[in-house]
Amino acid sequence: MLLHEDRLFPAEPAVRAIARALYLEIRSLPIVSPHGHTQASWFALNQPFPNPAMLFVQPDHYVYRMLYSQGVSMDALEIGQSEMRDPRGVWRIFASHYKLFRGTPTRMWLDFAFQELFGLEERLTEHTADLYYDQMAEKLATPEFRPRALYERFGIEVLATTDSPLDPLVHHAAIRHSGWKGRVLPTFRPDSVVDPEFAGFSERVMQLGELTGEDCGNWAGYLNAMRKTRQRFRAMGCTATDHGHPTAQTADLSREQAEALFGRVLAGNADALAMELFRAQMLTEMARMSVEDGLVMQIHPGSVRNHNRLVHERFGRDTGADIPQPTNYVNALRPLLDRLGNEPNLRIILFTLDESTYTRELAPLAGHYPCLRLGPPWWFHDSPEGMMRFRQQVTETAGFYNTVGFNDDTRAFLSIPARHDVARRMDCSYLATLVADHRLEEDEAAELARELAYGLVKQAYRL
Amino acid sequence: MLLHEDRLFPAEPAVRAIARALYLEIRSLPIVSPHGHTQASWFALNQPFPNPAMLFVQPDHYVYRMLYSQGVSMDALEIGQSEMRDPRGVWRIFASHYKLFRGTPTRMWLDFAFQELFGLEERLTEHTADLYYDQMAEKLATPEFRPRALYERFGIEVLATTDSPLDPLVHHAAIRHSGWKGRVLPTFRPDSVVDPEFAGFSERVMQLGELTGEDCGNWAGYLNAMRKTRQRFRAMGCTATDHGHPTAQTADLSREQAEALFGRVLAGNADALAMELFRAQMLTEMARMSVEDGLVMQIHPGSVRNHNRLVHERFGRDTGADIPQPTNYVNALRPLLDRLGNEPNLRIILFTLDESTYTRELAPLAGHYPCLRLGPPWWFHDSPEGMMRFRQQVTETAGFYNTVGFNDDTRAFLSIPARHDVARRMDCSYLATLVADHRLEEDEAAELARELAYGLVKQAYRL
Amino acid sequence: MLLHEDRLFPAEPAVRAIARALYLEIRSLPIVSPHGHTQASWFALNQPFPNPAMLFVQPDHYVYRMLYSQGVSMDALEIGQSEMRDPRGVWRIFASHYKLFRGTPTRMWLDFAFQELFGLEERLTEHTADLYYDQMAEKLATPEFRPRALYERFGIEVLATTDSPLDPLVHHAAIRHSGWKGRVLPTFRPDSVVDPEFAGFSERVMQLGELTGEDCGNWAGYLNAMRKTRQRFRAMGCTATDHGHPTAQTADLSREQAEALFGRVLAGNADALAMELFRAQMLTEMARMSVEDGLVMQIHPGSVRNHNRLVHERFGRDTGADIPQPTNYVNALRPLLDRLGNEPNLRIILFTLDESTYTRELAPLAGHYPCLRLGPPWWFHDSPEGMMRFRQQVTETAGFYNTVGFNDDTRAFLSIPARHDVARRMDCSYLATLVADHRLEEDEAAELARELAYGLVKQAYRL
Repeated sequence: MLLHEDRLFPAEPAVRAIARALYLEIRSLPIVSPHGHTQASWFALNQPFPNPAMLFVQPDHYVYRMLYSQGVSMDALEIGQSEMRDPRGVWRIFASHYKLFRGTPTRMWLDFAFQELFGLEERLTEHTADLYYDQMAEKLATPEFRPRALYERFGIEVLATTDSPLDPLVHHAAIRHSGWKGRVLPTFRPDSVVDPEFAGFSERVMQLGELTGEDCGNWAGYLNAMRKTRQRFRAMGCTATDHGHPTAQTADLSREQAEALFGRVLAGNADALAMELFRAQMLTEMARMSVEDGLVMQIHPGSVRNHNRLVHERFGRDTGADIPQPTNYVNALRPLLDRLGNEPNLRIILFTLDESTYTRELAPLAGHYPCLRLGPPWWFHDSPEGMMRFRQQVTETAGFYNTVGFNDDTRAFLSIPARHDVARRMDCSYLATLVADHRLEEDEAAELARELAYGLVKQAYRL
Repeated sequence: MLLHEDRLFPAEPAVRAIARALYLEIRSLPIVSPHGHTQASWFALNQPFPNPAMLFVQPDHYVYRMLYSQGVSMDALEIGQSEMRDPRGVWRIFASHYKLFRGTPTRMWLDFAFQELFGLEERLTEHTADLYYDQMAEKLATPEFRPRALYERFGIEVLATTDSPLDPLVHHAAIRHSGWKGRVLPTFRPDSVVDPEFAGFSERVMQLGELTGEDCGNWAGYLNAMRKTRQRFRAMGCTATDHGHPTAQTADLSREQAEALFGRVLAGNADALAMELFRAQMLTEMARMSVEDGLVMQIHPGSVRNHNRLVHERFGRDTGADIPQPTNYVNALRPLLDRLGNEPNLRIILFTLDESTYTRELAPLAGHYPCLRLGPPWWFHDSPEGMMRFRQQVTETAGFYNTVGFNDDTRAFLSIPARHDVARRMDCSYLATLVADHRLEEDEAAELARELAYGLVKQAYRL
Repeated sequence: MLLHEDRLFPAEPAVRAIARALYLEIRSLPIVSPHGHTQASWFALNQPFPNPAMLFVQPDHYVYRMLYSQGVSMDALEIGQSEMRDPRGVWRIFASHYKLFRGTPTRMWLDFAFQELFGLEERLTEHTADLYYDQMAEKLATPEFRPRALYERFGIEVLATTDSPLDPLVHHAAIRHSGWKGRVLPTFRPDSVVDPEFAGFSERVMQLGELTGEDCGNWAGYLNAMRKTRQRFRAMGCTATDHGHPTAQTADLSREQAEALFGRVLAGNADALAMELFRAQMLTEMARMSVEDGLVMQIHPGSVRNHNRLVHERFGRDTGADIPQPTNYVNALRPLLDRLGNEPNLRIILFTLDESTYTRELAPLAGHYPCLRLGPPWWFHDSPEGMMRFRQQVTETAGFYNTVGFNDDTRAFLSIPARHDVARRMDCSYLATLVADHRLEEDEAAELARELAYGLVKQAYRL
């Protein structure tokens, strides 16, 4: 067996028993996935996944960055190829390096999928590589492994994708018109038309103008185009926006200053500082629109994108070389909060890649401002240890109710139930330690376990 | 029952037994409270506390910031009102939101007071709000709940308040002359006459001149006024100063430079950098005076005060919107330490709101400089988890003897025994893990438990 | 007894049993010590160590900084004296302050040496000071306590020293020619001829020119002198370089820019920024040479050296007043990585004194770049707690195989087996928690325990 019933629960038997009892009450709650990177097209078209290598290795930079770090070339893994020449060969390379993932959450997610979905119970090694490949390939060809069937089998209640303002959302529309009961919603992620350093920024802004019938050559038209696009997303069920800036910097410029800055930025005359200021101002503009239209705002700052120049040049964005940097919130958010921080209708969910901010900035901010909530541990930190650090460092100041449940944030559809299962186990483990410490009664812990797995996320994302 | 005998001890039965045994030896030691924000007037006048809402909700920004973060308005809680219109109504709002405090130290402190002082054993909810209110109101009217009686019941040996150099200390004088045996001492906290960004700085400096008969229009007179005021505080039993600057920056200017800077600052001609430099220089001046007069210096840096502009404008200072920021010590303290760091009579107790400095800067500094000691986890970090992080990150490099026991740092008088109890339990829990790890013998742990609860604090604060 | 069989294993009995079983399989593996500060002369000359005070107190700034922090003067400890006037007196001072080390790793290392090497089983106090002194002095005079005998008794397979490019390596040569089977290798540590802020930098560069027959007055000659010296070190078995810069900053200047900068630096005309840029460029030059000659590069950044001005002036470098500062890697390493980060033959081992970088920067970098590996917890952080933090914060993203086993990094030869023993115990404890969590099978944990204690270090350092 790859999975043990009691995995991730505290080792002390009495605490483990409390954690297990809490978990059994919530393990089967529906999955609410308010933030991730699955594709609406999968559910619109409902085509089978091609093969194990294209399902597990090629799209998942968690996986191939680890192989790359140990000397496996990206070419050998056929990264970036739209069709694979030798998927079984790629799978064998992966299998023979599987021990690199010992102690990582990736290992847990994969083992969960291997056993729970494909019935595999022997460890993946170079010796079992072909057994795995054949058994998985066979199952992937069956109707039970089509995207919609898996969505249902996973017990998903609602699933949000992440989408550009230039996306026509045809797949989302197709899902809505198909009669299928699955709830797949878009998320408004405007980085590519908000961040002047995004490749093709100005052209994208012009496209936005065309799509919306607004003159995006001027500030007012640009903002109107944003507003209209948000409206279009809302019509497809969208409840949230998402902002992946290098920093959390916000600004509160006058209309005139903002207008002039937009002009420079659009003309390509802005230096690094001006581009940062523009992104900063746009966070405040987005917050202002959220006060109007009620979209929940997510801020995901702190990643230096495309850190490896060569890998970026050869393989493009999102290929496993985004590295976190120190991130400031206390001063960075002040202009936005000064302007809008006490607005009753505003909700901003803050994420971080800099865990030193948990106790220092994020918990104190969320423990005071009514508009702020803390997103779950993100990206490099959604490990069991990272989840425990989050609860241990945030709860004392912000409590549980200023947090928003779990995000799987995944590109790997098959990892969704595994990731939610890890989060539920870790939250129950944390709650169990509070019960064992006599800081919480069991009935309170049971209520909280349910909130963390299900209630808070629906409330926080207005789902 | 709200409280369990074994709360906060490690869950593993053998370790719990060690922790419990250590704790039982020290639980009844007198409370030494060298730093806090209770009012001398309470003990001078010995009037009853008015009602539960004014005792527990209104003065405690730990409490109402959490309610505010979840959408309860400050007006509904009557924050900032000198008399309450509807204290029972405020109490009911608080009670119905009590679950927000699950997992926080505030919950533990409150439950301790509810059960130990008021005999309440049912959980506080909207349903028990009135029961609580009535039972507490009744007791508050009795002589046993007057400040002096509580001071004695709590087993307090000495209690320091925090006081402005402009404070005439009449209440402290009254206590000393009253014949009451309680030992309530002032602490010299000169921020308002040292920090040019403090509202009314120049006027306050002039008042200081009047109070001391010095010409505070010039540097030498200003320093003399400080010296005299420190002397006046010492006559009232004061043994320590306290400095709550935004950063830990120090400076070591020449007499001429300092004089010129003082002139600019007093005239209101200083920019942000110059004001920071003035605060920096004043830390070194204060250290120099401490070498002379033996007052122990406390530095509490790193809080961005009054972060929420609207709340500050409407409700004033200290209303729950102070947010920590990254804090540097290694370079910031160097000018002061270069000048005075090896002085045998100097003692500086360092605090932090930036836990990333524990292993990186604070423990290495305190593990070398004879003048430096580390204050306990402060403010947002005086939770069980925060206390454990402190010991786990500081002990390896600074040991136990470069720390100074516990500070309750509270405005909520009734929370004092609860806070000391949490600290004693957590120190015993930490010591028990070292014993269970076979890194410490039980007799050593017992000696240390006593030192952490009682001995080190008296020695560190020269009490 | 000073030592317990089960020390440092988790307290929960089932987890402790797993940890103990893992440990018993690896406790006797040979010691591979790829980084440290023992002296080749000890093994070349094989003279007895003079007395307990000169062995344990005088050379070990871990020890005397703690005494100094509590008011013991450096003079009383005869720090910096080449011969001791009163070694027994120094030992008595140390013994009477031994309780200061409670809870520190220093205590564990010392107790290990006391019991395992000298057969002492009573606790060191003022009362046992003379017993200790006499028993140790007696043993130190025997042949079994000569350096080579201890090397063999410790089970050392290979031991690296740290050496200046100006060092003629005569002791290393003598060891190689002596017929003794011990493997003592130099490490190329060029700080003194690379860092313009090092006292006597220009003179040292000129000496390097003389030693190598290169004209170090120009950039090309200087680089050639480095290349030749690396070659000379390699001939003595050296496999690694080491770089102890204040920051991790790298640069990638053009040949012309670098040449001009070298000229300024050598002439003493460089300001702080230019000196930092020169160090930054030299890291990239060293990496380029490592691509050529295969020497493994170690970067140890982040220490503010000689923080205590007075102590530095009176007692010199390395006297216990080096304090860590915040350290950036993500931006600092980019110039080097842009140039060389994907070179298959390059290996760079990164260390840190800023633990906030573990999850934020170091694990993500090492989990992607093929040239990067993470060094073990270093200096202030090689405590049991520091080792556990390292594994808990690094493994989730970088796995085990991007780490390189343990470095003892010691000046105290007798602490080597103690330090490796602590590291082996802590790694087994960490692995045991993963097994108890059902995240790892026991056979995998056993394989990893062996890798962490022995295999990875040999592979990482090309030994």
